[in-house]
Amino acid sequence: MQAIILGSAAGGGVPQWNCRCPHCTMAWAGDARVKPRTQSSLAVSPDGETWLLVNASPDIRQQLFATPALHPARGLRHSPIAAVLLTNGDVDHVAGLLTLRESQPFRLHATRNILDSVSANRVFDVLAPEHVARREVALDESFAPVPGLAVTLFAVPGKVPLWLEEGTPEIGQETETTVGALIEAGGKRLAYVPGCARVTDDLRRRLSGVDVLLFDGTVYLDDDMIRAGVGTKTGWRMGHVPMTGEGGAIAALAEVPIGRRIFVHINNTNPVLVEESEARRAVEAEGWTVAHDGLTLTL
Amino acid sequence: MQAIILGSAAGGGVPQWNCRCPHCTMAWAGDARVKPRTQSSLAVSPDGETWLLVNASPDIRQQLFATPALHPARGLRHSPIAAVLLTNGDVDHVAGLLTLRESQPFRLHATRNILDSVSANRVFDVLAPEHVARREVALDESFAPVPGLAVTLFAVPGKVPLWLEEGTPEIGQETETTVGALIEAGGKRLAYVPGCARVTDDLRRRLSGVDVLLFDGTVYLDDDMIRAGVGTKTGWRMGHVPMTGEGGAIAALAEVPIGRRIFVHINNTNPVLVEESEARRAVEAEGWTVAHDGLTLTL
Repeated sequence: MQAIILGSAAGGGVPQWNCRCPHCTMAWAGDARVKPRTQSSLAVSPDGETWLLVNASPDIRQQLFATPALHPARGLRHSPIAAVLLTNGDVDHVAGLLTLRESQPFRLHATRNILDSVSANRVFDVLAPEHVARREVALDESFAPVPGLAVTLFAVPGKVPLWLEEGTPEIGQETETTVGALIEAGGKRLAYVPGCARVTDDLRRRLSGVDVLLFDGTVYLDDDMIRAGVGTKTGWRMGHVPMTGEGGAIAALAEVPIGRRIFVHINNTNPVLVEESEARRAVEAEGWTVAHDGLTLTL
Repeated sequence: MQAIILGSAAGGGVPQWNCRCPHCTMAWAGDARVKPRTQSSLAVSPDGETWLLVNASPDIRQQLFATPALHPARGLRHSPIAAVLLTNGDVDHVAGLLTLRESQPFRLHATRNILDSVSANRVFDVLAPEHVARREVALDESFAPVPGLAVTLFAVPGKVPLWLEEGTPEIGQETETTVGALIEAGGKRLAYVPGCARVTDDLRRRLSGVDVLLFDGTVYLDDDMIRAGVGTKTGWRMGHVPMTGEGGAIAALAEVPIGRRIFVHINNTNPVLVEESEARRAVEAEGWTVAHDGLTLTL
């Protein structure tokens, strides 16, 4: 199995279009200590020929351009991407569907809840049903979005997308709204959980023994955004467990046997974005890697 | 007035994600004869400080990153973009609104018809009304989207966006669905018409005497896409008058006094994309410029 992290940032990317927090300021200035990062997306293939795109970020066109394995390879119209899978309905995971138009056949997989959220917006009709079949996926049942890849979706604590919030949303429900994906090929297992409000016992059991874990690295501490002065929301309010602290991902997964631990979906306010920073060193000392765009895994 | 062509390509851009037509193939290969181009968008400012974005393309994040004048310039959160104007509801002109989230205040201007098309999609609620006021614009009435810019919208022959088509759409209606914009500042006038199915007498009158015209350059001949073997649609069917031929833009505007004539919204199948090609030379010989991304005009 091959996996390419197309985008390693959370919504907004690094730098975010309207942000001058210290990390975005460094990225705008071309400071090598903060790599620019595009929004959250992953490509996975059993053979390097046929690919599953997991989440379609607003930056997908730029991401595909930067990734030769995903360039069209034959005929007049073609894409190595045979299927797209969504793990929630957030803008940073669905807006890129609008770029995947142009009558290119692929299958769009998601839970009924996520498919319904997307389909309620007529603008996604640019993906005409004769080209893009929308396939409902049940939780906890293995399916093959591309031949040779077995994928199982599972509910993780989350929340509805921001654009579907009404009043104060319930946080931490384990429903079809926010899912993780266990992806298996050739006896290897990769778990992809880009959004997760809390690490539960069920999640620990599911992740036990995976070869690679790509996990929600949105915030370092629950109050990153408040500390940065750019917002009032905690990680919890956004549906994201922090990396550190009591109940944080590092501590909560410390005892779970996992081959390689990689943080993805990193928000621009997260101090781990700064190479050689204290925060970066701290998570690396705990055995975690901070993903960058283009990080390629062979397993 | 300053104007920056942020994106000079039609929907899909150059190269298009799934296309291996000769022009896209050259762009994928890095052949200098075909510059990569992002999707259709324009930024205009009366003073170089405060900007109007005309159309928000799916590539907007990449376009802003490439354009220092549009980077945030002060405080923690800021954008020089004070207003966004839409000239139709096509995906290549509205998808970028999803990137302009993150609680940044600006005004969104469009005709009632275009605003309604967008607003019917709840995903655009990421632009919360407390940050982004949606302002209906009447045709043929001057308004100031940013201080110092006077803008007048006018109907041009067009069609409904692809994602709103039902059966065979009516082409060439002059309604609020597809508009051009006349933008004035400091006694100078720029006309922006990225989509237009036919050059009418009314349009010729409106464009007479403008200092700069940015005009629909989607197709070279009406049957570009059919010749390229990548589709069955004519320019007319897509709502775009060809550059050349009888009734084409070059001929239809030849007698109209216009300071500078520039083609924008150029589809990947259009042979003018190839530098030094016969087609490129032919349109240049007629006094037209083929836009590229980043082309900056001071008038």
